[in-house]
Amino acid sequence: MSTQPTSSVKALVFDTFGTVVDWRSSIAKEIGDLAKRKGFTVDGDKFADAWRGGYGPSMNRVRTGELPWTRLDDLHRVILDKILVDFRITGLTDAETDALNRAWHRLRPWPDAVGGLTRLKKKFTIAPLSNGNIALMTAMAKHSGLPWDCILGAELVRRYKPDREVYLSAADFLDLEPGEVMMVAAHVGDLRAAKALGLKTAFVVRPNEFGPAGKPDLKADASIADLSAKDFNDLAAQMGA
Amino acid sequence: MSTQPTSSVKALVFDTFGTVVDWRSSIAKEIGDLAKRKGFTVDGDKFADAWRGGYGPSMNRVRTGELPWTRLDDLHRVILDKILVDFRITGLTDAETDALNRAWHRLRPWPDAVGGLTRLKKKFTIAPLSNGNIALMTAMAKHSGLPWDCILGAELVRRYKPDREVYLSAADFLDLEPGEVMMVAAHVGDLRAAKALGLKTAFVVRPNEFGPAGKPDLKADASIADLSAKDFNDLAAQMGA
Repeated sequence: MSTQPTSSVKALVFDTFGTVVDWRSSIAKEIGDLAKRKGFTVDGDKFADAWRGGYGPSMNRVRTGELPWTRLDDLHRVILDKILVDFRITGLTDAETDALNRAWHRLRPWPDAVGGLTRLKKKFTIAPLSNGNIALMTAMAKHSGLPWDCILGAELVRRYKPDREVYLSAADFLDLEPGEVMMVAAHVGDLRAAKALGLKTAFVVRPNEFGPAGKPDLKADASIADLSAKDFNDLAAQMGA
Repeated sequence: MSTQPTSSVKALVFDTFGTVVDWRSSIAKEIGDLAKRKGFTVDGDKFADAWRGGYGPSMNRVRTGELPWTRLDDLHRVILDKILVDFRITGLTDAETDALNRAWHRLRPWPDAVGGLTRLKKKFTIAPLSNGNIALMTAMAKHSGLPWDCILGAELVRRYKPDREVYLSAADFLDLEPGEVMMVAAHVGDLRAAKALGLKTAFVVRPNEFGPAGKPDLKADASIADLSAKDFNDLAAQMGA
């Protein structure tokens, strides 16, 4: 009998925005590039923060039942239409706005992400467990070379994290016990919800997720995280992969 | 404007048992290897045919509502328990029977499958659209190196092909129109169902699926298949990949 709390783990599932990919600098670059092409000016970092800032409230409208199930791509578009007004960006065609909305399909991984996932995949099943919809996550994986074994997440149960159904669906679809699945996230709230349902948990610190003035989670205590890692290579090493 | 009927295609989804993997020789080998280890005799080909023979009737019990939603792994186990009796195979522990049931997780691809899929993946999104459950399809992909972009299929909508929900779910999850998705199969019935719902269709002939005495579909006329290919490399070539 091993005393390692993580020795039962057969699959690792990953929060994606912020944990696997750097949404802030990716979105800032996309809007910056569009601004150059179209001849407007914009503070890309502020634009990224505003767009991401609409994410939690939008999902909560779905989680509380105010909105029916709505995919994240569609929530992103509603938020985008609003912030384009707030930032006084005009003159985009619908096709240009749609292409901008798909910036979330092209988010760039943190430098250690692809290498760490590739190591982990040799020993474990790996999948995203994101609030991003399947089309978004599939496109992102193709764009950035994320070597997932399958795509899991919110859309498959039409619930958004931290609703319990999302976490439990990962074990169910993989035909594993919750304790055989490890949730990996840079966000304590995500891990807390997973832990309460019996999943194993790994905290990976992403100090730059919110930029220089941001306030990321910098650690997770042992009641929340079975393991803490400084990046995905460290995670792979600690998991023996 | 292209006149190619397949020029709209952005994703290819694949029937798997028989189309991507050679279930018959794989299952025959698994039961043959087990027989050697355990000291019993069995006609592996007949055993494989009997196991696969239970597949359609089992799924139809789910499709008609006689059984609630039941995953293919669990249907396979019910059939297995019956044919072990029919073949007078005794003395397997529950763990050994469970390991044998997972032979379907280890089916070997046809020789052209991995190479053809790898080519197609560069130009298209590729995913299985199988009656196999997610855990089964994920394990098979890991075991055999099938380079899927995501895992789609029956379990995500709790319906079995040829129920329409399965085909339409592929377009829905990928955020595509049905006509942007091509169903690839060695079975005319599968293609007919997909075609009727507006999907594009490709027939790939698998003359050895059912063994030397089998009666596979050898061709699909133009009312059913937009394209016919002799293997996955031919499919990739015809799709410009």
